[in-house]
Amino acid sequence: MHNIAMLGAGLIGRFYTISLLGFRGEDKIRVVCASRQDTAAKFADEFNIPHATADMAEAIRDPQVDTVIVGLPNHLHKKAVLLAAEAGKAVLCTKPLAMSGSEALEMLEAVEKAGVFHGYLEDLVYTPKTLKALASTRQGALGKVLWARSRETHAGPHSDWFWNKKLSGGGAIVDMGCHCIEIARSFIGKGNCPLEVICWADTQVHPIDAEDHAIGLVRYDSGAIGQFEVSWTFRGGMDLRDEISGTDGTIWLNHWLRTGFEMFTSAGQSGYVSEKAEGDTGWLFPVGDEVGSLGYVEMFKDMFNSMDASRKPVEDFYDGYVVNCIMDACYRSAASKQWEPIDIQTWRGGSTAIAEVALKDYDDSHYLLKEEKMPNGHLKIILKDKASGQISQVIIE
Amino acid sequence: MHNIAMLGAGLIGRFYTISLLGFRGEDKIRVVCASRQDTAAKFADEFNIPHATADMAEAIRDPQVDTVIVGLPNHLHKKAVLLAAEAGKAVLCTKPLAMSGSEALEMLEAVEKAGVFHGYLEDLVYTPKTLKALASTRQGALGKVLWARSRETHAGPHSDWFWNKKLSGGGAIVDMGCHCIEIARSFIGKGNCPLEVICWADTQVHPIDAEDHAIGLVRYDSGAIGQFEVSWTFRGGMDLRDEISGTDGTIWLNHWLRTGFEMFTSAGQSGYVSEKAEGDTGWLFPVGDEVGSLGYVEMFKDMFNSMDASRKPVEDFYDGYVVNCIMDACYRSAASKQWEPIDIQTWRGGSTAIAEVALKDYDDSHYLLKEEKMPNGHLKIILKDKASGQISQVIIE
Amino acid sequence: MHNIAMLGAGLIGRFYTISLLGFRGEDKIRVVCASRQDTAAKFADEFNIPHATADMAEAIRDPQVDTVIVGLPNHLHKKAVLLAAEAGKAVLCTKPLAMSGSEALEMLEAVEKAGVFHGYLEDLVYTPKTLKALASTRQGALGKVLWARSRETHAGPHSDWFWNKKLSGGGAIVDMGCHCIEIARSFIGKGNCPLEVICWADTQVHPIDAEDHAIGLVRYDSGAIGQFEVSWTFRGGMDLRDEISGTDGTIWLNHWLRTGFEMFTSAGQSGYVSEKAEGDTGWLFPVGDEVGSLGYVEMFKDMFNSMDASRKPVEDFYDGYVVNCIMDACYRSAASKQWEPIDIQTWRGGSTAIAEVALKDYDDSHYLLKEEKMPNGHLKIILKDKASGQISQVIIE
Amino acid sequence: MHNIAMLGAGLIGRFYTISLLGFRGEDKIRVVCASRQDTAAKFADEFNIPHATADMAEAIRDPQVDTVIVGLPNHLHKKAVLLAAEAGKAVLCTKPLAMSGSEALEMLEAVEKAGVFHGYLEDLVYTPKTLKALASTRQGALGKVLWARSRETHAGPHSDWFWNKKLSGGGAIVDMGCHCIEIARSFIGKGNCPLEVICWADTQVHPIDAEDHAIGLVRYDSGAIGQFEVSWTFRGGMDLRDEISGTDGTIWLNHWLRTGFEMFTSAGQSGYVSEKAEGDTGWLFPVGDEVGSLGYVEMFKDMFNSMDASRKPVEDFYDGYVVNCIMDACYRSAASKQWEPIDIQTWRGGSTAIAEVALKDYDDSHYLLKEEKMPNGHLKIILKDKASGQISQVIIE
Repeated sequence: MHNIAMLGAGLIGRFYTISLLGFRGEDKIRVVCASRQDTAAKFADEFNIPHATADMAEAIRDPQVDTVIVGLPNHLHKKAVLLAAEAGKAVLCTKPLAMSGSEALEMLEAVEKAGVFHGYLEDLVYTPKTLKALASTRQGALGKVLWARSRETHAGPHSDWFWNKKLSGGGAIVDMGCHCIEIARSFIGKGNCPLEVICWADTQVHPIDAEDHAIGLVRYDSGAIGQFEVSWTFRGGMDLRDEISGTDGTIWLNHWLRTGFEMFTSAGQSGYVSEKAEGDTGWLFPVGDEVGSLGYVEMFKDMFNSMDASRKPVEDFYDGYVVNCIMDACYRSAASKQWEPIDIQTWRGGSTAIAEVALKDYDDSHYLLKEEKMPNGHLKIILKDKASGQISQVIIE
Repeated sequence: MHNIAMLGAGLIGRFYTISLLGFRGEDKIRVVCASRQDTAAKFADEFNIPHATADMAEAIRDPQVDTVIVGLPNHLHKKAVLLAAEAGKAVLCTKPLAMSGSEALEMLEAVEKAGVFHGYLEDLVYTPKTLKALASTRQGALGKVLWARSRETHAGPHSDWFWNKKLSGGGAIVDMGCHCIEIARSFIGKGNCPLEVICWADTQVHPIDAEDHAIGLVRYDSGAIGQFEVSWTFRGGMDLRDEISGTDGTIWLNHWLRTGFEMFTSAGQSGYVSEKAEGDTGWLFPVGDEVGSLGYVEMFKDMFNSMDASRKPVEDFYDGYVVNCIMDACYRSAASKQWEPIDIQTWRGGSTAIAEVALKDYDDSHYLLKEEKMPNGHLKIILKDKASGQISQVIIE
Repeated sequence: MHNIAMLGAGLIGRFYTISLLGFRGEDKIRVVCASRQDTAAKFADEFNIPHATADMAEAIRDPQVDTVIVGLPNHLHKKAVLLAAEAGKAVLCTKPLAMSGSEALEMLEAVEKAGVFHGYLEDLVYTPKTLKALASTRQGALGKVLWARSRETHAGPHSDWFWNKKLSGGGAIVDMGCHCIEIARSFIGKGNCPLEVICWADTQVHPIDAEDHAIGLVRYDSGAIGQFEVSWTFRGGMDLRDEISGTDGTIWLNHWLRTGFEMFTSAGQSGYVSEKAEGDTGWLFPVGDEVGSLGYVEMFKDMFNSMDASRKPVEDFYDGYVVNCIMDACYRSAASKQWEPIDIQTWRGGSTAIAEVALKDYDDSHYLLKEEKMPNGHLKIILKDKASGQISQVIIE
Repeated sequence: MHNIAMLGAGLIGRFYTISLLGFRGEDKIRVVCASRQDTAAKFADEFNIPHATADMAEAIRDPQVDTVIVGLPNHLHKKAVLLAAEAGKAVLCTKPLAMSGSEALEMLEAVEKAGVFHGYLEDLVYTPKTLKALASTRQGALGKVLWARSRETHAGPHSDWFWNKKLSGGGAIVDMGCHCIEIARSFIGKGNCPLEVICWADTQVHPIDAEDHAIGLVRYDSGAIGQFEVSWTFRGGMDLRDEISGTDGTIWLNHWLRTGFEMFTSAGQSGYVSEKAEGDTGWLFPVGDEVGSLGYVEMFKDMFNSMDASRKPVEDFYDGYVVNCIMDACYRSAASKQWEPIDIQTWRGGSTAIAEVALKDYDDSHYLLKEEKMPNGHLKIILKDKASGQISQVIIE
């Protein structure tokens, strides 16, 4: 049972609070902190939280509070985390961890030095679909993972500060690339070192300084590729999908727009449809359990259960730091127009051999490259001679 | 905060327990009861439940228990409920409530007479998709509901007793028709009286006495039709879908086989894929959050929150009784081969006029029947003359 | 190479003409006939057809014409067919064949007596998906077919005459039930006699005499059920789906709204989206190849190839007659509120035994009812004792 | 009416022949040429083609032949095209046009010098879905196109020569990248110059010299990005999808694995399921009209109709040349690890301004960046001050 200081009363604070208080849980929010006292008070009132303040340090130091949740704009993460570490409180920080790898490293060092529990609130790694898909992948259902694409695109963030590069640290990469990068990294393996990145980023539509569209490829030690696609220019709602390919299988996850809930209405739905939905008539695609589908429920469960069991959660500040390092390399690559190395100060994973896929024998002298049933019913077999390397085909009628 | 006696340690007891204990919740299971002591003990051990017993009355009367959850075979529901009522404990009973309408009525009267809280554990009405779809429907997104199809089919139940009509009360109708009937009734409106039913039922595949496949139409006071399709002969997993049509819109829900999680594996998944899945190689369709997607999480939340607020939950024994009455009429209709009236002793809803859909005016002298854009770009308008009733068309190029 | 008289210049005539002339084919339309000369002339001009007339007999008797295609309102089918038979021309008639079984029988007898080639233009049996699904079904992919659902619903027909029962012969059943009934019959087997039907029909929305919504179950000799759902009240476009279940498999076909083409547009599509589409902004679901997806291309290919090879096409007037007989029984059942026998004068198929599904042996003394992998990884097996009939379960951990 | 020499009797020759002969068309194949006489003879026999030969020049020079279709391995395209140009015959060449940009240019110059009709058989641009999506895009449904992803992945090609880089010119890029590049280019606009490319390519699985997996980004003059993903390592069938995003809309096309045809079979389908399908039990996803869905039918229609009308077809050798130039740059980029310019000798399109998206006014002093309905029902509006550039938000409750 934990007593929480919730820092932030915007959309993310709301989602976190709904997730924490929505299930007859034993953990309680003791105090909420917002930039303005009236916002905090209103939020506290709505969710029946006993205290509200605009003073971050006060909220963190509240003696009844043992856990600080940081749901603030990016430029305030460091300050909040350092205060929490100083106060000896467990600290859970929203994504991205920091505005850069060096800032993230400073935060990581602070919490580790203070010896406090730290969790990185990378919710999309915790969606029930993702958790189950990760479990299947680890059980070998896909064989060796070769490629993971994670995509998050919508029409832009919901808060003014995120459109201001000085407050957010960047554009779509910092906003959503952090999710996609960590999702791909989770499937490819956290012990598999991300080596280098190529990234395209552009401001295609909006009158802003930051990128509103970016695509990147992260190459891992094993040769696997993590691909992210992020955009604030997408139309049609929030496109939130992952695709993973391995030597033995494929996984496709659709988290938002095609989840088995389809509605046509000419009358209108009069109100909220789902996060980032566009319009409320015609064909709509609501999401049943939004906070569950975004991973918040399982994420907090892991955080508090890990805290209680004195174990590392699935995502901690080190993971957030690695993601920040990858994003730093993305920005360098977008500028240099070439692959850029990823600079992680202290790689804690091991090394992973280039995926050596076992060649399949067809007979003593041939490898099997492929077999396929043809439209006329024949079976076509492609072989490689082990000695000469020559490729030939056999047709079995 | 509640202390629970869990009666039943089979699949349903397991799902209930996972739902209740899975989210750092404040409610606790105090004792589990199974038909065999060792089964109960093993279950208690797995879920860290302090007491285990094979004596139902003992579990119910445990002085620390305030709530009894009935997750037993159908023929034991009545006994458990009567004991709970006698002990003055809140009682939550799994579906179907009873083996017949008259048995259900007896149970309803017992809990009402005892004045205890009673909830009907019709989980599929509580899936997050269903709850959201019901909310949209009530807000008018579909206009007047005309038809609701609910389908649950798979390869058969997982417990031996369910294949024995004497212990279960019937076949696929009693097993799954109860879900589908109540889902359709929820969309059509609980105040809208179900009047009559036509039902086809057959034993197409299995060497059993009960029906393994059935289809029924329930006609409501408003003229709306609730359609259920249930089968133990379906191949490919568990098909769990709802479709609702109204004058202004349509909703399609897919709860199990197409929810945005798709996996191909040649290596295999080595283990459980999802409830009622067939095979573990090739294209598989796992479900991310099974207990959430089946409605268990929201169901128990509603039950305990309602108990705490001293209000009726979404589903109580009266609802279970109505469903049993409809199922009784289904069996009569399957035998008589004609529509059969539904015999509800005390209808607590009101009456609902036959859906009078407002006619749309095209101009002073015509109603608009329809307009459609044709392939050649023309707009075709179908009109009905208010005076003569003659139907004509206008083409706007 | 054939010379065609196209009777009808409405939507169906347009779809037929596009299908016939769209693929550099060798068959030519020699003359088009419409109720008004100017409509016919405009159509002829658009499609480069040499002759246009408002005189049906003239078109049919044109000495250069060898094949008559009837794309006329229902009340004109008989007249056109009798004229074609009299003129000794091959005749292809759109669906439904006739306004009743007796009218269909008259038409069938006329063409058979005249010895002319006759084809029933039931296009939806010819969609490429349906043809391939039928082939798989016949190869045994589904085992014995137990149930086939075919659904066609939209917001109502595009021609005024179809809303007038005297000219069309009925409502949604006559309009679309004919498709659905024949689709289900094709999967269940054309030699499998349709015995009886239960049907609900109502006028839920429109100010018309005919039914705008109907659901029916057709029971076949084998015990299989063909289920049709037709409506002019559906919102969201044209819902055109089939589902078939057999002892060994399942097929789901979606012909219109979810075919792998999804578009969101805030700008609008400015024009036709697809047949029966509603609106042209928001999420839209166009169909790539409309005439192909509706079966027109394969249908005419079969008709003319069969004519050239002097063989019966997949669908001829006898099939149309059977469908009319089933629809007659549907209307009787909707009125009598009970199952009604289907009255086919001369059943040309054979008899089909009630599906006897082979029982699977588990061991010498038990049948296997079912096995399923449980969430905890155990394998649960349900058995029936061959001697005592008792049902038991085995759990393999 | 055309008389065709079909060069090639493999899978592609088969698909072409089925497309050409399958619809009662007036065009005829006069002669088929294969590398072995017996293969050619067998093919001729199967499709009722009057002549068969192993002599390419003989087939091309056949005086009855007016059109040569090249369905040969890549290293033979040039020879066949030069012979056809020399013989003054129209020539339609399969994809990729050549093994390199310089080879393609030589072929382009040969046909243009000879003045013969030339078509590039890029079938996937001609799928009915693609044609309709292109038409919508040109009508403005997506606004300005910003990004187009085209993906083709499967378990590897069906012919031995394609696994040999010397005969094919490369791996997955040459095999399928040519499709994806031209699809994206068609959506982005053929007058929009492709400027530079970044490409990752690797041999992740197979014991071959060529790449079996590659991803590339092509940047166009307008700033739009064409993204291709190609792989011979994908498991689960053939993944053939396109996604296009513009300022006003989105299009998603799925051509193969999710097209509205789903089948589960435990019995098996005994034979061919669809091109590149894996396995024939469990959940399968056949394709209804394979040759139509792959674009062959519309492609040949355009080719011959264009020939008859003396107009350029949608795809001619110049398009093939541009694609080869882009692929050349891809290979350079994969080696240099940086963006590489695309070297097109004679760019025939114009120039396209960097997409200038009109800013939306909120009021006289602010641009509207975004508006979104929030979960609590509030409307959140993000604004940019025209003068100061400051970003702010307004919440309307």
